Amino acid sequence: MARVLTLQGEDFPRWYQDVVAKAELAENGPAKGQQVIRPAGFALWERMVEEVDARIKSTDTDNASFPLLIPQSYLSREAEHVEGFAPECWTVTHAGGKELEEHLVVRPTSETVIGEYMAKWVKSYRDLPLKLNQWANVMRYEMRTRLFLRSSEFLWQEGHTVHESYEDAHEFTLHILHEVYRDFMENVLALPILAGIKTVEERFAGALNTFTCEAIMRDHKALQMGTSHELGQNFAKAFGIQYLGSDGKQHHGWTTSWGTSTRMVGGLIMGHGDDAGLRVPPKLAPIQAYVMVVKDDAATVEAAEKIHAELKAAGIRSRLDKRGDVAFGRRAVDAELKGYPVRVEIGPRDLAKNEVTIARRIGEVGKTSVSIDGVSKAVAEALELGQQALFDEAQARLDSCTKEVSTLAEAIEAAQSGVAKVPWDLVGVEGEKQAAGEGITVRCLQREDGTVPDNLDEPNLVTFLARSY
Amino acid sequence: MARVLTLQGEDFPRWYQDVVAKAELAENGPAKGQQVIRPAGFALWERMVEEVDARIKSTDTDNASFPLLIPQSYLSREAEHVEGFAPECWTVTHAGGKELEEHLVVRPTSETVIGEYMAKWVKSYRDLPLKLNQWANVMRYEMRTRLFLRSSEFLWQEGHTVHESYEDAHEFTLHILHEVYRDFMENVLALPILAGIKTVEERFAGALNTFTCEAIMRDHKALQMGTSHELGQNFAKAFGIQYLGSDGKQHHGWTTSWGTSTRMVGGLIMGHGDDAGLRVPPKLAPIQAYVMVVKDDAATVEAAEKIHAELKAAGIRSRLDKRGDVAFGRRAVDAELKGYPVRVEIGPRDLAKNEVTIARRIGEVGKTSVSIDGVSKAVAEALELGQQALFDEAQARLDSCTKEVSTLAEAIEAAQSGVAKVPWDLVGVEGEKQAAGEGITVRCLQREDGTVPDNLDEPNLVTFLARSY
Repeated sequence: MARVLTLQGEDFPRWYQDVVAKAELAENGPAKGQQVIRPAGFALWERMVEEVDARIKSTDTDNASFPLLIPQSYLSREAEHVEGFAPECWTVTHAGGKELEEHLVVRPTSETVIGEYMAKWVKSYRDLPLKLNQWANVMRYEMRTRLFLRSSEFLWQEGHTVHESYEDAHEFTLHILHEVYRDFMENVLALPILAGIKTVEERFAGALNTFTCEAIMRDHKALQMGTSHELGQNFAKAFGIQYLGSDGKQHHGWTTSWGTSTRMVGGLIMGHGDDAGLRVPPKLAPIQAYVMVVKDDAATVEAAEKIHAELKAAGIRSRLDKRGDVAFGRRAVDAELKGYPVRVEIGPRDLAKNEVTIARRIGEVGKTSVSIDGVSKAVAEALELGQQALFDEAQARLDSCTKEVSTLAEAIEAAQSGVAKVPWDLVGVEGEKQAAGEGITVRCLQREDGTVPDNLDEPNLVTFLARSY
Repeated sequence: MARVLTLQGEDFPRWYQDVVAKAELAENGPAKGQQVIRPAGFALWERMVEEVDARIKSTDTDNASFPLLIPQSYLSREAEHVEGFAPECWTVTHAGGKELEEHLVVRPTSETVIGEYMAKWVKSYRDLPLKLNQWANVMRYEMRTRLFLRSSEFLWQEGHTVHESYEDAHEFTLHILHEVYRDFMENVLALPILAGIKTVEERFAGALNTFTCEAIMRDHKALQMGTSHELGQNFAKAFGIQYLGSDGKQHHGWTTSWGTSTRMVGGLIMGHGDDAGLRVPPKLAPIQAYVMVVKDDAATVEAAEKIHAELKAAGIRSRLDKRGDVAFGRRAVDAELKGYPVRVEIGPRDLAKNEVTIARRIGEVGKTSVSIDGVSKAVAEALELGQQALFDEAQARLDSCTKEVSTLAEAIEAAQSGVAKVPWDLVGVEGEKQAAGEGITVRCLQREDGTVPDNLDEPNLVTFLARSY
């Protein structure tokens, strides 16, 4: 087969660019750092939205929509927040041909404007918890941008909740982390997740604690896939989110916020893709089975249409390719590039034997012949095996590239080519700075047993250091 | 029951404001003309998105995502387009603390930026038709704003296609109008549609022809619910969308664009709502059946939970209300206000007779008792009857408020309180201006047989005049 992509081993960043371009996933927009997400890329995102949205709804969180433009004064009400976000803002100064009295920023995130409305809506403890989410575009000015991974505009969901107590807010922050984000990422995206707490340096501007889901890419760099923030009473105090408690007294609420974005598309590409292109986990794949005719004679096309219909009836997301005017080899290479988990290839020779060829994109087994009667079953099995195989492969990579070390120097050394696991006491704020000088960041902290700590004050935490996107 | 809303007959605009506020659908955002769409309003929009998106996908159109911010120079490339939209633009002048070299406008619509990319992607007739859609937010500066109906930011879908010929583009423009928009509006929103072509004055800036779906509200004013534009080769020439034809020569493509927005939520409210609040068509309703306990004793709650589960199993979108701490009357008034099509009320007295009470929000029949065994069937029937009853009522209103007249003066008179139908030859561009002076607009033109004309040059067209939103 013709070489379409730079090899991962030669130049991983260039391989990434090649896949994004050749699989027609996205390209640069006209202004700095913008992106155009093309149909093949957007279909991946739409499936992510569908799966994440269902999980968010299962937590009794309601979707809503808040304004794109936020008055600059809102941002300033929470001191750490404005310090963190003001330098990244895109600013609207004019509308309808006139300068605005107050300049507006394109939302970099919506804690402030949503906080303003939560303050109006929350009156009594009976109104709590208040759980909202929006699917929206946000903008942050970035100097160095990369499609999906770091762009000036991106699509995301941002959840915002208010609770009666620290305990409720804390529990919900972790529920989102584990049951919404981690569950989706591990069980649908097939990416094993390092879940933990961020350091002070890495946490969200204005948060008490930031919890994170980190995945390790095929080049052993980490990607932050989603974060869930415990905001304490910081925003509640800044925006006056107060409720009358059952004790008859006024209290400030406890808020959370949490988000995942189109960045996950980048994680999918770099977490599973190989030298032939994308490999899309079957549970996510917009196209799970790609039914191809080898030649477009009437009998083959008819058989292919029947199989396509049968697969759809079996609940498999199937796409039919009956193009006879494009060479079969070229179409097969393109299907590999796009990462369809299973191809069902049908040609006159197969048909003569009442068989089709099943080509798996994932795993060791390449092509097998199966009887036409058994095609739905064979495809369903291949999809299930493919999902597991991708996860297992990613888990093995994470395990093999993670090195437990016992000094900061060893950690920095190990993190050059993998993930270093080291006691946090040996790193600390000073060690974190030193590592940063070498291009290494602290991805997250866990307890020794691998669970997520409640806060940074817990003793005996371990930390993971790596290069990152 | 307590009076919650201004009566429609007293003050329709105020009734509208009341419903939007009391049913917690939306409220004003912090900056001019912005809106916050609250969960109850957003759930209506989410259902609209689901239904419209499925219809768009059935036309083999793919979803994608284009940048929010468009360089000002793009807008200027199509002369009529910039003239129409420039005065409405919101402009980003600064980012990352510095003034931008080229100012960017928040997209008021995306023909220009999408045209730029279509020009890159279309090379040969084999690439056509190219059919794209995006669900996005757009902004247009407005002096007088009203929630859902006219706001500075709104949510919409915008479809953009390129075709090989005038005929293909024309056919697709009308396919979207009838099979996507009209079908959804009549069969799901239960609103009879006047479909036709817009006058030169009312058409989209830069289009050859604009086709429209107009609905008549309960105050007899018209609302433009969706438009489909034939753009000819105007944008193809401005952006260089060219293809190599099967004849071996370069040709400009023929483009279309078409959109529906959160405005439809306003149409739903004003098209069906009554003095008790919203009436949501069952096929659209996010909550079709609202199962309420009269009292929250254990037996009643248990029965209600069982019925709720049974309704869900029958594919009915059911919500359970087992609150015993809020008075039943207050909850029932609120359910009417929110417009849930069917309430299933369960109290100890019903249970003693092995019955429940079915309360219909739509139609003449108020409450009926049905046996618990038959509740799913009774609810399904009530939903089906309710859908039809809403459409019939709206159709009867449209028929009764439409007056066929034979002079312009009569048309202007009739349009003060309804819809005037009059030969276009009696109106013309001059008559249109005269009507505009009286607050009356030409909503659309049809052929005498009620079908949609191909263009404004057809003879013997009839036109509909009305006040409008």
